[in-house]
Amino acid sequence: MSKKYVYLFSEANASMRNLLGGKGANLAEMTGLGLPVPQGFTVSTEACNRYYEDGKTIADDILEQFYEALAKTEEINEKKFGDPENPLLVSVRSGARVSMPGMMDTILNLGLNDIAVKGVARLTGNDRFAYDSYRRFIQMFSDVVMGIAKAKFEEILDGAKKERGVKHDTELNTDDLKTVVQRYKALYLAEQGKEFPQDPKAQLLEAVKAVFRSWDNPRAIVYRRMNDIPGDWGTAVNVQAMVFGNMGNDSGTGVAFTRDPSTGEKRLYGEFLMNAQGEDVVAGIRTPKAISDLQDTMPEVYNQFVDIAKTLEDHYRDMQDMEFTIEKGKLYMLQTRNGKRTAAAALKIAVDLVAEGKLSKEEALLKVEPKQLDALLHPTFDPKAIAAAKPIAKGLAASPGAACGKIYFTASDAVAAAEAGEQVILVRLETSPEDIEGMYAANGILTARGGMTSHAAVVARGMGTCCVSGCGDIMIVEKHKTMSTTDGKVFHEGDYISIDGSTGYVYGDAIATEPAKLTGDFGTIMEWADEVRTLKIRTNADTPKDASQAIHFGAEGIGLCRTEHMFFDEERIPAMREMIVSKNRDQRVRALLKLLPMQKKDFTGIYEAMGELPVTIRLLDPPLHEFLPQEEEDIKALAKEMIIPLEELKQTIANLHEFNPMLGHRGCRLAVTYPEIAEMQSRAIIEAAIEVAAEKKISIKPEIMIPLVGDIKELKYVKDIIVKTAEQVIQEKGVKIDYLVGTMIEVPRAALTADEIATEAEFFSFGTNDLTQMTFGFSRDDAGKFLEDYYNKKVYESDPFAKLDQNGVGKLVRMAAELGRKTRSNIKLGICGEHGGEPSSIKFCHDIGLNYVSCSPFRVPIARLAAAHAAIEEKKAKK
Amino acid sequence: MSKKYVYLFSEANASMRNLLGGKGANLAEMTGLGLPVPQGFTVSTEACNRYYEDGKTIADDILEQFYEALAKTEEINEKKFGDPENPLLVSVRSGARVSMPGMMDTILNLGLNDIAVKGVARLTGNDRFAYDSYRRFIQMFSDVVMGIAKAKFEEILDGAKKERGVKHDTELNTDDLKTVVQRYKALYLAEQGKEFPQDPKAQLLEAVKAVFRSWDNPRAIVYRRMNDIPGDWGTAVNVQAMVFGNMGNDSGTGVAFTRDPSTGEKRLYGEFLMNAQGEDVVAGIRTPKAISDLQDTMPEVYNQFVDIAKTLEDHYRDMQDMEFTIEKGKLYMLQTRNGKRTAAAALKIAVDLVAEGKLSKEEALLKVEPKQLDALLHPTFDPKAIAAAKPIAKGLAASPGAACGKIYFTASDAVAAAEAGEQVILVRLETSPEDIEGMYAANGILTARGGMTSHAAVVARGMGTCCVSGCGDIMIVEKHKTMSTTDGKVFHEGDYISIDGSTGYVYGDAIATEPAKLTGDFGTIMEWADEVRTLKIRTNADTPKDASQAIHFGAEGIGLCRTEHMFFDEERIPAMREMIVSKNRDQRVRALLKLLPMQKKDFTGIYEAMGELPVTIRLLDPPLHEFLPQEEEDIKALAKEMIIPLEELKQTIANLHEFNPMLGHRGCRLAVTYPEIAEMQSRAIIEAAIEVAAEKKISIKPEIMIPLVGDIKELKYVKDIIVKTAEQVIQEKGVKIDYLVGTMIEVPRAALTADEIATEAEFFSFGTNDLTQMTFGFSRDDAGKFLEDYYNKKVYESDPFAKLDQNGVGKLVRMAAELGRKTRSNIKLGICGEHGGEPSSIKFCHDIGLNYVSCSPFRVPIARLAAAHAAIEEKKAKK
Repeated sequence: MSKKYVYLFSEANASMRNLLGGKGANLAEMTGLGLPVPQGFTVSTEACNRYYEDGKTIADDILEQFYEALAKTEEINEKKFGDPENPLLVSVRSGARVSMPGMMDTILNLGLNDIAVKGVARLTGNDRFAYDSYRRFIQMFSDVVMGIAKAKFEEILDGAKKERGVKHDTELNTDDLKTVVQRYKALYLAEQGKEFPQDPKAQLLEAVKAVFRSWDNPRAIVYRRMNDIPGDWGTAVNVQAMVFGNMGNDSGTGVAFTRDPSTGEKRLYGEFLMNAQGEDVVAGIRTPKAISDLQDTMPEVYNQFVDIAKTLEDHYRDMQDMEFTIEKGKLYMLQTRNGKRTAAAALKIAVDLVAEGKLSKEEALLKVEPKQLDALLHPTFDPKAIAAAKPIAKGLAASPGAACGKIYFTASDAVAAAEAGEQVILVRLETSPEDIEGMYAANGILTARGGMTSHAAVVARGMGTCCVSGCGDIMIVEKHKTMSTTDGKVFHEGDYISIDGSTGYVYGDAIATEPAKLTGDFGTIMEWADEVRTLKIRTNADTPKDASQAIHFGAEGIGLCRTEHMFFDEERIPAMREMIVSKNRDQRVRALLKLLPMQKKDFTGIYEAMGELPVTIRLLDPPLHEFLPQEEEDIKALAKEMIIPLEELKQTIANLHEFNPMLGHRGCRLAVTYPEIAEMQSRAIIEAAIEVAAEKKISIKPEIMIPLVGDIKELKYVKDIIVKTAEQVIQEKGVKIDYLVGTMIEVPRAALTADEIATEAEFFSFGTNDLTQMTFGFSRDDAGKFLEDYYNKKVYESDPFAKLDQNGVGKLVRMAAELGRKTRSNIKLGICGEHGGEPSSIKFCHDIGLNYVSCSPFRVPIARLAAAHAAIEEKKAKK
Repeated sequence: MSKKYVYLFSEANASMRNLLGGKGANLAEMTGLGLPVPQGFTVSTEACNRYYEDGKTIADDILEQFYEALAKTEEINEKKFGDPENPLLVSVRSGARVSMPGMMDTILNLGLNDIAVKGVARLTGNDRFAYDSYRRFIQMFSDVVMGIAKAKFEEILDGAKKERGVKHDTELNTDDLKTVVQRYKALYLAEQGKEFPQDPKAQLLEAVKAVFRSWDNPRAIVYRRMNDIPGDWGTAVNVQAMVFGNMGNDSGTGVAFTRDPSTGEKRLYGEFLMNAQGEDVVAGIRTPKAISDLQDTMPEVYNQFVDIAKTLEDHYRDMQDMEFTIEKGKLYMLQTRNGKRTAAAALKIAVDLVAEGKLSKEEALLKVEPKQLDALLHPTFDPKAIAAAKPIAKGLAASPGAACGKIYFTASDAVAAAEAGEQVILVRLETSPEDIEGMYAANGILTARGGMTSHAAVVARGMGTCCVSGCGDIMIVEKHKTMSTTDGKVFHEGDYISIDGSTGYVYGDAIATEPAKLTGDFGTIMEWADEVRTLKIRTNADTPKDASQAIHFGAEGIGLCRTEHMFFDEERIPAMREMIVSKNRDQRVRALLKLLPMQKKDFTGIYEAMGELPVTIRLLDPPLHEFLPQEEEDIKALAKEMIIPLEELKQTIANLHEFNPMLGHRGCRLAVTYPEIAEMQSRAIIEAAIEVAAEKKISIKPEIMIPLVGDIKELKYVKDIIVKTAEQVIQEKGVKIDYLVGTMIEVPRAALTADEIATEAEFFSFGTNDLTQMTFGFSRDDAGKFLEDYYNKKVYESDPFAKLDQNGVGKLVRMAAELGRKTRSNIKLGICGEHGGEPSSIKFCHDIGLNYVSCSPFRVPIARLAAAHAAIEEKKAKK
C-alpha cells in the first residue's frame, strides 16, 4: 500500500506536526476536541519533499489520495466543487513545522468559476458579493499561483472605477464587477496563453504546487537560514472549506491571544472586525475593535469563544494565538497555535504557568527560547521615541542593543571623548585590532564595511556592545571626519546619531535608550535552568570589567582569557613593539621585562574579579605583525619614536608579512620560536595568582592554555617552558600553588591526535572558530565573498561560524573528546569558540559530554538556559 | 631480572641491528662467522634512550651490565684496563641502526694513562709510539668527549715543534712527546678544573655518555631530518679492543668494497696503507695503495682477506664495505656493512646478484633505494669539467639536475631567448604563476628568495627542471637586468652561468652537461618493479610535453591535469582577465567563449599524448586575483589595454584581495559562484575527448575532478553543472562517451564526510598538499618562518609537505578511503599531492589500498620502485 500523504482533519492530531505542519496538525487537533472547525484536509510535508524529488511534479499515488480526500471533504461539508447549486469553496494555506512568514500567501475562495459564482450568488442572495469574491480570487490566484503581477489587475480595477467615475471599490456594482471579471480573465489569457482554469480541481492542484514551490523561494530560504530551519523539513498544504466573515453584520472575523503577547499578562487579547474577511483586519483600512467588545456585539459568540480559548490553552498548556470567523452568527475556529511573544512575556508566561500548576518547571523552561533572552540583556530604545524616528541608513544587525551618542572617527578620539564623559558612537570604515580601546570606550560601533563576522561584529558581540556593521548606505571620509548618507546629509565629528544593533538601523539624531531590565521572572527561570543543567557555563573575558559583567550574568569561571588584547593598549604597545623588533633573545627579554608588571596587573584584576572560580588564560595567539602599523605614515612615526632607521623597521614589517596570516606564525608557534614570551606570561600568571591568593586568603588554581597546538611535541615543548617557569616562581615565592596546563583544540591535527595530546594536556578547550575555518578550508574574513552565493544556491543552510557544523567540525570535536578521555579519563573538556553561546551548539556540547561551554558575557544567560534545555531533552529522549 | 642493555660481540648477531646498531650487529655477526674480530661489546640503543629518559644519566642497572661486559672483554683479550704490564686499550664508536655521518668521531686508544702508557711502551718496544698514542688520545678525548677546542692542542704541538726547530710531528722524539703530554694534561686541568682522568673506566664511561649525547647534536638532527631517521631510534656504542696498524712494516690498515661502488663492477675495490692507523688513510697525508697491491706486499694476508670478503658478501648477499687492520702480520676485521653505492652501481649490483643466483628479483629490488633513481633521471655536469669548477654562490638544492645557459631576468625575455635557440637560465628574485612560461622555456631556474617549497621549487620539481632557490648569495637588480655575487662580480643579461639543482651550487661560467642515461639495468629493475607492484602510477601533467615525458618514464595515466597554468599563457590571459572583470554572467560567458577553443586544444593535445590511458582533469582552482597584476604600473597598462577606467580596475583588484588566499574564494567555490566557468571547461573536456576518440579510433573516458570540495551539496551543485553540460555536448555531437566525475579530497571536512561525498563522487584524489596545510593549520608559504625552529627544537623531524604525516593527515586519508569505500565499494582512489612521489608516503598509499599515486613525470620511476617495495614488504609482513 502506498504511504499516506493526505490526511483529513478528522484523521490527524497535534502530534503530527512534523508531517502536517503546525497549522494542519492544530486544525486536526481542534477537530478532535470537537471545536467548530471548517473541515478540510492537509497534504503532508513528505508530499512536498516527494514533489522536489520527483522533479517538481506530484506523483500519481499522491494525486490519488488527494482526490479522495477532496471527495470526502465535499461529502463532509455537503458541498461540491464547481457545483452550480451548492459549490464548495476552499482556502489553501501553506503550513510548515514552524510558522514561516517568508512563504506563500493564502489563497481564498478557490473553487469559484463562471458557474460556481452563480451558485454563491444564489446561496448568499448577494450577487455583488459573489462577483467581488470571484474577481478577488482571479487576481489572487493569478498573482500568487501563476506569478502575474498584481499591478496589472489593479490597473484594470482602477480603469473600471474611472469609467464609472467612482473612487472606492465598494462603489462598483455587480455589473461593473462582472466586467472586471471578464477583463481579468482576458488578462490571464494574454499572460498565460490559456484560459483561466474553470475546473476547481485544476485550480486546487496548481495552488498546491505553488505552495510547494514557495518553500524554495528566496524569502523563505533567507528566513530559514536566519532561523535555523532545515531545508528538508518541507511544507504541508492545508485545504479548508471557506467560511465567510463578510456575509453581513452577523458575520465577522478576528484574531486573539489567550495572554498579552507583549507583557505575558493573563487576559484575552486581540481584535475583530464585523462583516469582514481576514485580509481586511490585516489591511488596516478599517480599525478593528478590541476583542472584549465582542461581548457587547455578540455575547453568546463571545462566551463560546472565551470557553474555546480556555479549552485550547488548557489543552496545549501554552498561550494560544487563534484566528476565528463568525459566519451568520456561527463561530468557526480557523487556526490555533502557540503564540509568539516578547522575551519578557515568554518569561512571565512560563513562570505563571508553573504557578497555575499547568506546567512543570522543566516544561516551562522549554517554553522560553534561549536566543530570545538576548533582547533582555541589552539597552533598548525608548519605545515612544523610536516609534517616531526615521532611519537614515541600514546596515547589518551585527551586535544587539541600542545606543545613542556623538560620533567619532578614530579610536583615540573615541577614547578621549569617553574620558571626557561623552556618550560615544565609534564610526569606522572597518575596525582592526588597533581600534580595540576605542571600541571599548564606545556605546556603539558603526562600520561601513565588513559582514556579520567582521572584526567589528565579532569583537562587539564579545563585549556586548551594540554594533551595526557593513552599512554601505553611509560614506565615511576619515580625513575630514565626516560621514554622509545616500541623500547627501553630512554628519561631522560630535554630531549625534543612534544605532540599533538588533535591526541594523541608523538614526540621524539622539534617541533615548533604556537600560536592560532583568526582572524577577528572569531570575526565576535562570534559577530553574541552573537546577537542571549539567554543563557548566564559563565566559570569554579579557578584562576585570568583562569578568564582573559575566559573573553578574551567572558565569562560573573564565573559559578563555585572551592575553593579546591587553597589548594593544596605548601604554603597552611600545614595549610590545620593542619586543617584536628585537634582534636577539636578550633584547626581547628586556622588552618583555617591561611588559611583565603590566601583564601581571591584568591577571591580578581578573583573579580579584573571579575569586575562586576557575580562570583559563591563553598564551599570546596572534601573529606579531598585528602589533605593527601598516600605513607608511604610521611606520614613519613609529621609526622616529623607537629611534630605529625607517628602512630597518620597514624590513622588519616586510619580514613579518604573511601570505595567509591565519595559517602563519602564531599561537604556540610563537612560543616555540620565542620561549621568552611564554616565560614572561607564565611568570605573570603564577605570580599574580600567588599574590591574590595570599591577599584574599583564597585558593586560586590558574589554567594555562596553549593555543594552536597541532602536535604533542609542540605542546610538550611549550608546556615544559611553562612548568619550568612556574616551578621557579613557586620556589622564589616559597608558596605552593596548583595550576593546570592544557591546550586549545583548534587545529584539525590536534583533534585527530587528541589521544597523544592528552598525555600532556590536562584540559582541552575546543576553539571552534579556528577549527571551523581549517576544517572547511575557508577563513571568516574571506568567506564573505562567496557564502552569500552558497546560501542562495542552498549549498549551505546556516553559517558554520555561528552554528557548529555538527556533521564535519562536530565529528572532529566528538572524536577528540573521545580520544582525550581514552588517554586521560578525567580530562576537563570545554569549548570557547563563538559556538559556546549558540543553543544548538550547546546542545551538541552537552550531548558529547563536555564539562563546560564558554561564551561572551552577554551570552551567559542564553547558555545557561540552552544547557538546561539540552539536559531536559536528554532526559526526555531517555524516557 | 633487569633488561639486557650490554652485549658481548659473541652474544649477538646481525639480526639485532635495531638494538645494537649496524656496526655492533655486524661485529657480532663476524664474530659468529669465526672471522678475526678484536673482541669487545656493544651498549644498546635502548640504553641510549634510557640515558635521555633518565635525565642524561646512565642508570645503575645499565652500569652494572657495562662493568660486567668490560670485565669479560678483559678476560677474552687477556688484557686489563690500566694494567702496567698488559693494558687493554679500546676504541669507542657510535653506531646507529643506519650509518649516520653527522654523529660522533671515533675515540681510539682509550685506556691510556700515565701507567698504561709505560706498559704499551714495553709491550711494543716502542716508547715513541706509546707517548705519541697517549698525546693523541688526550687530544681526541678532550676534543670529542669534553668539547675542548682542538686548536688549543695544536698550538701546544706547534710550540713544541718550534722549540725543537722541526717541521713535522714525526720529527719530535719521545722526550718531546712526553713534554707535550705534560702540557696537554695541564691544558686539560685549566679547561676542566680537574685532572685528566687516569681511571680508564671513568674515561670509558665519559666516552659512552659523549656518544649518547652526540645522537642529539645539531649535525645529527639535520642529518636525521634529511634522511627520515626517527629521533627515537637512538645510537648504540661499540667498545672494541684496539689493534694497531702502525706497529711497523708488517702492520697496516685499509678499507675495501666487494664491488666497485661507482659502477657496480664485480671486483675488490679499495685501498690500504702500511704502518698506519685508520685516520692516516682518511687524512690524506700519505697516498694509500690500491687494495690489489696488497697481494704483492703480504700475499697470505691478501688471500685471507679475499676469502673473508667473499664469505661476507655471500653471507650478507650484498656488496660489502669493510675496514681491516693488520697488526704484526695478523689480519683483523674492524667493520663490515652493506656498502653505499651510486645509483648506477645500485642498479648493476642488484641485477648482477640476481644473475649470480644470490638474490631473488624481489630481494634485489629492495637493494635499490627509490630516491636514488632521481640522480639518473636528470642531466649532470661533465665530471671532469665540474671537478675543476669553483662555485660563486650556494642556494637550496630545490630541484635536481644540472643546467648551463645564458641568464635572463624576466619570463618573457627567457621565452624570447629560448625561441631564438638559446640555452636559458631564468634568474628571478622569486617566481610567481605569471612566470610559468619563462620557467618552461628555461633549462634551469635560479631564485634569490624562497625555500624548498617556494613556487619556483615546487613548479620546477613538477617540470623536472633544475632549480636553485633561496640563493641569498646573489643580489638581483631586476631593472638593470644584473645579478652580482658577494665578492662583487656582476653578471649581465646573456652571460653564462651553470647551476646544480642537486647541490645548490651556482657557477660563474658555462660547464658542459651530460644528458640522463637510462641504462639497461634501469630498464630491468623497472620491469621487475612493475611485475610486483599493485599500485598504479600516474603523473601530474598539464601539457602534452609533460605527458609524453611521463609516459616515457612509465606513467599509466594522468592523475592531475591542472587547468589553470594554461591560462597564464600570454595569448590567453587577456581573455581570462576579461572574464574576471566581467560585470555579469553574459559578459563572462562572452569572455569564456574566447577561452573555450584554446582550452579544448589543450585537452586535445593531452588526449593525443595519453591515448587510452586515463586522464584526470581538474577544474579551475586558484583564486582569480592570481590572474590580475598587483603592481601599479602593470595595472595601468592593463587598464589601458582593456579600455576600462583605471579606478574601476583597481577596485576590481581590491575587491578580489583576500586576507588568506589559501582559505579564500577558489576551487569549486569559483564554480559555485560562476557556474559558467565549469560549463566552459566541461564542454572543452568532453568535446576534445569526442574528437580525439573519433580521429584516433580509440576509447577515451575523461575523469573530471572538482577541487576543494568540503560538502556533499557543494560537490553535487558543481557535478550537476558538469553532467548537464556533458550530456548537452553528447547530444549535440550525437556521440556517446563515458566520463567520470570525482573530487579532490583536500579539505579536512571532505575527508570527515567522505561517506556522504562518495554518494556523488565516482573517484577521490587526495590532494595532500592542501590537506596537510589545513590539517596542520599552516601554509607552505608561511611555515618557512618557523619550521627551521621546529626542526632545531626537535618538534618536527621531517617536512610534512615532503613526507606524508601518517599520524595526522594520514589518519584523515585512511578515514576518507574507508568511508568512501563504505558508500561506493568500487570507488577509485588516488593521491595527487607532492607526496605521491615520496617513497614512505607511497608505501602508506599502498597499505591503505589506494588504486594509484600520481606524481610529477620525473618521479614516476621512483614511484614505480617504491610501489614495488611496498608490495614486497607487505608480502614479507604477511609471512
